[in-house]
Amino acid sequence: MAPQISTRARQMPPSPIRKLMPLAVSARRRGIDVFALNIGQPDLETPEPMLARLGTFADKTFAYTPSEGTEAYLDFLQEYYRSIGYELTRNQIVGTTGGSEAILFALCATTNPGDDVLVVEPFYTNYRSFATMAGVRLVALTSSGEDGFHLPGPAAWDAALTPKTKAVILCNPNNPTGTVYAKDELERLAAFCAKHDLFLIADEVYREFVYDGRHARSALGLEEIADHVVVVDSLSKRYSACGIRIGCLVTRNEAVWQAALRMAQGRLSAPGLAQWVALGARELGSGYFQSVVNEYQRRRDLLYEGLRAIPGVFLRKPEGAFYTVTRLPVDDADDFARWMLQEFEHEGRTVMMAPAGGFYATPGLGKDEVRIAYVLKRANLESAIEVLAAGLEAYPGRRES
Amino acid sequence: MAPQISTRARQMPPSPIRKLMPLAVSARRRGIDVFALNIGQPDLETPEPMLARLGTFADKTFAYTPSEGTEAYLDFLQEYYRSIGYELTRNQIVGTTGGSEAILFALCATTNPGDDVLVVEPFYTNYRSFATMAGVRLVALTSSGEDGFHLPGPAAWDAALTPKTKAVILCNPNNPTGTVYAKDELERLAAFCAKHDLFLIADEVYREFVYDGRHARSALGLEEIADHVVVVDSLSKRYSACGIRIGCLVTRNEAVWQAALRMAQGRLSAPGLAQWVALGARELGSGYFQSVVNEYQRRRDLLYEGLRAIPGVFLRKPEGAFYTVTRLPVDDADDFARWMLQEFEHEGRTVMMAPAGGFYATPGLGKDEVRIAYVLKRANLESAIEVLAAGLEAYPGRRES
Repeated sequence: MAPQISTRARQMPPSPIRKLMPLAVSARRRGIDVFALNIGQPDLETPEPMLARLGTFADKTFAYTPSEGTEAYLDFLQEYYRSIGYELTRNQIVGTTGGSEAILFALCATTNPGDDVLVVEPFYTNYRSFATMAGVRLVALTSSGEDGFHLPGPAAWDAALTPKTKAVILCNPNNPTGTVYAKDELERLAAFCAKHDLFLIADEVYREFVYDGRHARSALGLEEIADHVVVVDSLSKRYSACGIRIGCLVTRNEAVWQAALRMAQGRLSAPGLAQWVALGARELGSGYFQSVVNEYQRRRDLLYEGLRAIPGVFLRKPEGAFYTVTRLPVDDADDFARWMLQEFEHEGRTVMMAPAGGFYATPGLGKDEVRIAYVLKRANLESAIEVLAAGLEAYPGRRES
Repeated sequence: MAPQISTRARQMPPSPIRKLMPLAVSARRRGIDVFALNIGQPDLETPEPMLARLGTFADKTFAYTPSEGTEAYLDFLQEYYRSIGYELTRNQIVGTTGGSEAILFALCATTNPGDDVLVVEPFYTNYRSFATMAGVRLVALTSSGEDGFHLPGPAAWDAALTPKTKAVILCNPNNPTGTVYAKDELERLAAFCAKHDLFLIADEVYREFVYDGRHARSALGLEEIADHVVVVDSLSKRYSACGIRIGCLVTRNEAVWQAALRMAQGRLSAPGLAQWVALGARELGSGYFQSVVNEYQRRRDLLYEGLRAIPGVFLRKPEGAFYTVTRLPVDDADDFARWMLQEFEHEGRTVMMAPAGGFYATPGLGKDEVRIAYVLKRANLESAIEVLAAGLEAYPGRRES
């Protein structure tokens, strides 16, 4: 008889972003074009100077790099943070295998098994995976689409607190909601963390992706809680290089940095080729981010106008990142997303979305919502919206308004 | 006031392998040649067909790969396991970010926080890092250098068992001891796992590195406990490609595989460039491993003969991997290793070793032992032994025999 897997293994959630992939594969085998709006995989090319780095790798051995990152990669990170206004020392940064590993390190550095971490739902679903691995409970405060998913008021925060609460994790600009938190929201949150002695784990991997002239305020700027802040960062989205798996953890809390470094030593090193490729970003002109952001803003505009024109669909205009959580006129977005892939096509095309239920911790919430990523060329986005509108019209489970 | 880091963060051990690095850097700055015997970073070149893969990467976007690994990488792994006698399905393999991530996935899949995992000490020190992250206690059975660090007898295993014991983790061929476990040892361990319903996490990243005509028996061959076995594997040592960070978890236990896949989805994907580079190994001739093993066997012979000729030094001949835990005529190997870097030089050269205390869970054990990796060219190894002998002669803390 096989031994039983652990409780945490049973509780480990399947990815709501990736779970429909097999149905998309089947649809594609049937000759159907599937627009992937489910995953934040930009179709933008990785900048040429980064691609070109592969041709310059001259070492004859792919050797371990230092656990905290190569000198050159850490230099590059320091330059990047300086460029956005933050002077960091080498003892405040640990290179990580993507933002993902930085999240796990941040959770393990700040919590013990059985502790609680506050998060605003809907939230980046994979926080749940890392929390489950770390044996930590995510305690969710619900935000509302009507408010553009901005932070709940003080009463909700006070009510969510338990003696086990050790940290808040906040994604800004937000995946999945596209919300960019305002100065006063962040300051209220900082005061809450200060008052209750909580760490603030700030996932800022979409920092550059803000629209309409907005500015994403880094938690590194919250001076009054400087030693509460652990920033999670990644090059994946910033340079359209998701697959190389490189990022970092940044903190001015010396003990957290030391702990993250020891965890980094445990896994020996972050991917060496990724650190090598990253350096190509130094050669990007100052206009790089602006041109990328302009492109995403156009995509956002197109998606927003397209979606709100579909009867029964509700969303606020996303402020940043490249996602929206959108309410559909259906009772069960899981079933609708499945149906779109298995039973529907519009002129040989269909759409894959991520049902939003998996982005909530509270059971039953998000049942009529989907997360949509606007990472496709505008022509494709336009087609995808047309297909989605046709799908909603044809779907037997459509809710009457 | 800064919030306190977690207990597990405080308990996270610094790497006994890497902790002396700053002293080595200082010594090198003083113009001293430092032979690095502390870390399993082979000086062999990565095979040319793998290096050459970098020049063939034609995608314009470094995109996420599937969470379980690319089709091609999984094909490659299936071919590799077939070549060593094991037919595996796609539902038995998950590609991971090195063996390190596979260890973490295996621990989380099989244990809950507060559970116990049995391990034979001295053991690969970084198991402690992953166990600490996972909130799991490592319960150590002590093996002895006089027995070549082979497995303790049945009484020790029975005595170590608690109601919380969920798994055994065994590295074979062993890092740090160089032990290759015999058929009957593994069968007794399998019977113990079967009887007590334990998972066997088998770390086999040194599978090819066995000497004197030995054969490393994979836990995949323990048919009677097929669904207890979780194999941790890596391409780091096999192809002298430590820095690319690619490996896998292999299990015939469907629930463990599903759990590992969900954890893999949580962190999105393993490094894409590493999976790309790995495929170059397909082009290696059948003689590749033999030539590498021959080289390591010659290094092993040179190190073994050199070390045993030093008065007061004790070791058994290593059977596999490329390490030995060697007893030195000192009371405090930590201090000796530090002294070698800070206060000693022999004709402008010194040696960095890993004090073995960090490879034991039982406090006080391994105080007079070091782990030595024989990953350097023979000429360098020869020099390193000469330097070590001179160092032991000059060391003020030398134990009288």
